[in-house]
Amino acid sequence: MFKDTTPEEIDKAMHEAWDAYLIYKKTSLKERNRLMHTIADLLENSGEEIIHTAMEETHLPEARLKGERARTVLQLRQYGDAAEEGSWLDLRINTADEKSNYPDVRKTKVALGPVVVFGSSNFPFAYSTAGGDTACALAAGCPVIVKAHPAHAKTSQMVADIISKAVEKVKLPKAVFTHLHGISFDVSKALVMHPLTKAVGFTGSLSGGKQLFDWGNQREEPIPVFSEMGSTNPVFLLPGKIKSDAEEIARQYAGSITNGVGQFCTKPGLIIAIDDGSVDGFKEILKEKIENTAAQKMLHAGIAKAFAQKKEKALQQKGVSVMAATTVETDISEGQPAVATVSAKEFIKNQLLRDEVFGPFSLIILCKDFKEMADVASVLKGQLTATIIGNEEEVKQHRDLCDKIENICGRFILNGVPTGVTVCTAMQHGGPFPATTDSRFTSVGSDGISRFVRPIAFQNWPNKLLPEELQNENPLHFWRTVNGKMTKDAI
Amino acid sequence: MFKDTTPEEIDKAMHEAWDAYLIYKKTSLKERNRLMHTIADLLENSGEEIIHTAMEETHLPEARLKGERARTVLQLRQYGDAAEEGSWLDLRINTADEKSNYPDVRKTKVALGPVVVFGSSNFPFAYSTAGGDTACALAAGCPVIVKAHPAHAKTSQMVADIISKAVEKVKLPKAVFTHLHGISFDVSKALVMHPLTKAVGFTGSLSGGKQLFDWGNQREEPIPVFSEMGSTNPVFLLPGKIKSDAEEIARQYAGSITNGVGQFCTKPGLIIAIDDGSVDGFKEILKEKIENTAAQKMLHAGIAKAFAQKKEKALQQKGVSVMAATTVETDISEGQPAVATVSAKEFIKNQLLRDEVFGPFSLIILCKDFKEMADVASVLKGQLTATIIGNEEEVKQHRDLCDKIENICGRFILNGVPTGVTVCTAMQHGGPFPATTDSRFTSVGSDGISRFVRPIAFQNWPNKLLPEELQNENPLHFWRTVNGKMTKDAI
Repeated sequence: MFKDTTPEEIDKAMHEAWDAYLIYKKTSLKERNRLMHTIADLLENSGEEIIHTAMEETHLPEARLKGERARTVLQLRQYGDAAEEGSWLDLRINTADEKSNYPDVRKTKVALGPVVVFGSSNFPFAYSTAGGDTACALAAGCPVIVKAHPAHAKTSQMVADIISKAVEKVKLPKAVFTHLHGISFDVSKALVMHPLTKAVGFTGSLSGGKQLFDWGNQREEPIPVFSEMGSTNPVFLLPGKIKSDAEEIARQYAGSITNGVGQFCTKPGLIIAIDDGSVDGFKEILKEKIENTAAQKMLHAGIAKAFAQKKEKALQQKGVSVMAATTVETDISEGQPAVATVSAKEFIKNQLLRDEVFGPFSLIILCKDFKEMADVASVLKGQLTATIIGNEEEVKQHRDLCDKIENICGRFILNGVPTGVTVCTAMQHGGPFPATTDSRFTSVGSDGISRFVRPIAFQNWPNKLLPEELQNENPLHFWRTVNGKMTKDAI
Repeated sequence: MFKDTTPEEIDKAMHEAWDAYLIYKKTSLKERNRLMHTIADLLENSGEEIIHTAMEETHLPEARLKGERARTVLQLRQYGDAAEEGSWLDLRINTADEKSNYPDVRKTKVALGPVVVFGSSNFPFAYSTAGGDTACALAAGCPVIVKAHPAHAKTSQMVADIISKAVEKVKLPKAVFTHLHGISFDVSKALVMHPLTKAVGFTGSLSGGKQLFDWGNQREEPIPVFSEMGSTNPVFLLPGKIKSDAEEIARQYAGSITNGVGQFCTKPGLIIAIDDGSVDGFKEILKEKIENTAAQKMLHAGIAKAFAQKKEKALQQKGVSVMAATTVETDISEGQPAVATVSAKEFIKNQLLRDEVFGPFSLIILCKDFKEMADVASVLKGQLTATIIGNEEEVKQHRDLCDKIENICGRFILNGVPTGVTVCTAMQHGGPFPATTDSRFTSVGSDGISRFVRPIAFQNWPNKLLPEELQNENPLHFWRTVNGKMTKDAI
């Protein structure tokens, strides 16, 4: 339907993005925020057609898509406001010290350059065309080049048209935002390898994200590639709590495993419990709920096929047995919810069981004691999230286990579910590899802006020639660290 | 003299460092600061022998080495104090919002794990064993494994013994600090590739730093490798200022090019001027001063040889002619100061002339007009620093040129020399590739601590089980962003 962008078109687009960068990076934070609010307003009022298009392309239900659009609008406004508030600039000023012969040095942040964004298949709005990466890059002062996800290319084009309209409305250069199509890997590769690309944002599979990361590092000038590549999101059940609150927790987890057909990067894929009888009630109720959950159509045929295969492969592993599978009739394009069990002993021996199964599937790992539970925590790779279910007393008793879990996750939840990522300043959505390619940054929350800027220090510049945020008078009323003290005062 | 560490010894050291990490990352910031001040105190009082050993190994003069030791002591204290002050934790708190069903989320930073540090040849104290990378990693809560630079292995061992003594004195696990020797690349590779290594700091050549970076990315679990790889530090001379202050500027630059035998990563290697007569006075005085600067022994024979070869190669390029060379008698191990000239036209055509020549050599690029000066700025790669020499009026007139220069540097100096990197919060020592492998971080100043930590968010934890810095009462009195507002108040 949409033709793949040619290498010549990519080169032209990147040059135009670069020219736009030289102008856009100099815009005030107020102007950037105005652009982001304008996009948000237009998207908020984009009507029914875009929702119906997304429904057709992704098989996600209307309410979910409307909620996701609202979340995307919220993100744009929240990150735009955060950009204008200015504390992300981490302003540092050391005034000259003639006694020690120290010069005046002042540090702010500057945009990296054009950012290529690869949207996700599972969030056609919130982590795609006008999603979190685009919002962060625009807030940072970087032009954005989005490659549409082929699975929802029409929706992507509609969102892109909205962004372009907003760019025009606030009178910024057109190439502040570019939208390209491409099914072939060659398009992705050409975008990452182009010398004028200065950073990449990606949300999707491990294989896809790692490939972009490798290309980014193989360039003559390596660039940061922020790939968010999913997780198994382990959940550790401590006996006291899981025994006393079995029903409530089973209800929550049946939802967390199957909501959105399990197509969330924060779906709880591994549940680790002590096999001393305390978990039996939870298992029983979870089983019943899973069996009564209808299968639903997945995002696209490729994902449905991959889910069926990966689930099947997991179930074939030594010691793995199905505990619950939906009994509601389904067809091949639908993700059939299932939960299986395995002993910790077998799990620790079998690397394959640590891989994410994207879809409504979860594996319960049964440990003979806390020592074995700690061993499971030790063999797990990096995760977006980890969760502990436990009473306060239990958690206190098992601080060592908590420390081990802390080592592998970006967000650590107590008594909750990992699905549902609140858009707020304190959020961390990013964890040690292979959850993401750079655990030092987040892709949710306004701190994600920092991915697309670098510090620059001005030494010995007269006040009037400095960027506004570094001038003595502090005309923008930003928080600044002046000679080691945090202050909003003028100098 | 020192034997290369064997693969078995490296594996053992990394496991010990990992065990130390699990304890050290949980130490309070106060304890880490105490360790760093203890190292600083012992180093400050380390006497004459260590200075004489360093003089023998590096051929650097006594006063310089004593000054460098003092700088190293200052860094340890400054970064330790900054660590304890806590603002580097970037604390963010969003309290629960029951109306919107948002959970309580609180974000702090956690140490990445064991950090391998490769010291530089040109700073045996300040960017080696107890240098900036080690100080930042210790402040962050990471154990450090230093591979001694073979060119000053004895000095390195003496400093390492001081650090180990300090670790013992404050009763921390021995393996918080490890010191290894190795001339073979195999030792470096094994250290970077070891699965328990979680980050790398390096200061040195482009080829060395890039190799470590590539290894770091080729691991099964890629890790951040912070290589600071030098620069040509371009200096742009605007006609008004260079004409009126020729003598003073020529004096400064003769010093900046030849001080420390030009063995600084911030040595001005390229000087860009308009060839309209305004620069003639500067050239003449610079020539005289260079001719009268004696050659000095370089750090080691390998560096002296590389300097002689690279300088010779630059001088053989089309259009390059020697403007000044020392006339003081020298021998082969000494770096002979020289300055050459070339037209902008030839410079732009010749990639080789953009490479760093490590030693007392600088190339003056003569432009026929400002357009050509901007073209030179456009072809330059990433730089640690860039400098403009100009009157306020001139700088104002040439904002476009300034914007171009801003795109390529981490520190932008007006009317000064790039050599001399002040240790302060506002410092940025790091620029776009190939100056460093990650322009988003600095290796000088306490902001360098951020290289070795990652954020972690705690969701829905009861107050008493949270890390101290995130508890409601704010017992450590840190600055925190609470529901979007910067404050030191309790919640």
